[in-house]
Amino acid sequence: MQIAFIGMGTMGAPMAANLLNAGYSVTVHNRNREREIALSEAGAMRAATPAKAAAAADVIIVCVSDTPDVEAVILGENGVLQGARAGAVVVDMSTISPAATRAMAAALAEKDIDMLDAPVSGGSEGAQQGTLSIMVGGEAAVFERVKPVLGAMGKTITHIGPSGAGQTTKAINQIIIAGTYMGVAEGMVLGLKANLDMEKVLQAVSGGAAASWGLSNRAGNMLNNSYPLGFRVKLHAKDLRIALDTARNSGAVLPVAALVEQLEAGLISRGFGDEDVSAMARVLREASGLNE
Amino acid sequence: MQIAFIGMGTMGAPMAANLLNAGYSVTVHNRNREREIALSEAGAMRAATPAKAAAAADVIIVCVSDTPDVEAVILGENGVLQGARAGAVVVDMSTISPAATRAMAAALAEKDIDMLDAPVSGGSEGAQQGTLSIMVGGEAAVFERVKPVLGAMGKTITHIGPSGAGQTTKAINQIIIAGTYMGVAEGMVLGLKANLDMEKVLQAVSGGAAASWGLSNRAGNMLNNSYPLGFRVKLHAKDLRIALDTARNSGAVLPVAALVEQLEAGLISRGFGDEDVSAMARVLREASGLNE
Repeated sequence: MQIAFIGMGTMGAPMAANLLNAGYSVTVHNRNREREIALSEAGAMRAATPAKAAAAADVIIVCVSDTPDVEAVILGENGVLQGARAGAVVVDMSTISPAATRAMAAALAEKDIDMLDAPVSGGSEGAQQGTLSIMVGGEAAVFERVKPVLGAMGKTITHIGPSGAGQTTKAINQIIIAGTYMGVAEGMVLGLKANLDMEKVLQAVSGGAAASWGLSNRAGNMLNNSYPLGFRVKLHAKDLRIALDTARNSGAVLPVAALVEQLEAGLISRGFGDEDVSAMARVLREASGLNE
Repeated sequence: MQIAFIGMGTMGAPMAANLLNAGYSVTVHNRNREREIALSEAGAMRAATPAKAAAAADVIIVCVSDTPDVEAVILGENGVLQGARAGAVVVDMSTISPAATRAMAAALAEKDIDMLDAPVSGGSEGAQQGTLSIMVGGEAAVFERVKPVLGAMGKTITHIGPSGAGQTTKAINQIIIAGTYMGVAEGMVLGLKANLDMEKVLQAVSGGAAASWGLSNRAGNMLNNSYPLGFRVKLHAKDLRIALDTARNSGAVLPVAALVEQLEAGLISRGFGDEDVSAMARVLREASGLNE
């Protein structure tokens, strides 16, 4: 099976490497072409454009940053749509708009090219170790065809529903993180202002209804006011904007996600966009006079 | 060791029963005295007032609803302060204001009576099974003296710090729950509006950074729009008001806790105060047109 992989970023490069390690024949392309070199040395072929990468491929994987980037790669000049063969499958593993996803799937379908949306969670560590969680939207039969390919990159691979369902599920994931982390951040701020021994507080509240991955893994960042990656504020903010757009279009009301997106926008504008998303505690700490 | 137990509510009654089962001599009192009968039949003595219950006791446990109730039991006419001996320990297991706690501890100290604040989490199920999490504020030496008594009612027993620290920790617990549940509720609402298969969505998002006790145990309520107990909205709202007062006095800023307290106040005024606290999803569902 011939695979094209477009996007050699923090996520895409190790994901493509895992496909090579699994024995697939992979052709890579990246806008900044120097990023292709490491993969080329690991056995990948290189292509000058998305169209050329897609030309001989059975499965064309896209892993870039945002909705306009995916649209450029698929619909743009020298894009996948111009190069891919009828019968090929485009698998978009970026996190982008569900509505834009459905529009691109329709454009590809006119040339008998299938498309799955397959955003991931699990971060760069999951990408390197091949343990990503992959949430898939698109036709079930197409999903079954590419499932072994996804299995080389992820551990929990769930077909959710039709085109866009994977992206909406990713949006749900990011919304839940927004609320969970804010709850933890507010709790930590109250405890710090009361001068409590926060190690003991964490011990006392971690066993019950307040328990979460964020409490176990990110409360420490919030207490230290230090936010190493992790997952970037600027990417979470982008994902929340997708969630809020999707919510607006469907009539869903998400007050906490909206609040967190605004706090994150403030962090980004002040130069904190590359901190871990637990940095939303930075804003509450400042508002509470803890960083003075 | 002689124990007085004041407050035979949903929590207090089974907690007192566990003390009897552990072999302690227990004298019970409740404002509505009929509630003492079941405990009396299980071997407890009955007392007509908090003062009389406290008279012969080494440890005086209070488990009532709110700050004014504890103040009435301890400081009021025929209250604990009028009956307790010097050297006794008052253990307040209600969830109340940390500031009021410190004031009562000071009043008791004038009569050489020690006080611990020891609020619990784990619900009526934890109270019955003796598996409560108990968060304790007060002097360490006093804590060590009554720790075996607490051990008959709870599993995780943590001494956090000085007077009020247990109550502040409980406030932190309730704040974290507010944020976590709101994140889950917003995620569920977006998914419902998108007509996703929510079982598959839960499967996809439960293994990563969105994971929480609330997601695992309360998302089902939110999807079914049915909120069996659990923990009552009206009690959580009371706890959040304590948290917000404490925050206001210390300068901590808690925007999501404030939002959730307001949503819960709305639920209570409409007759939903006895639903489980996951009913905050009811408000978002309604705002999103899902309950029409």
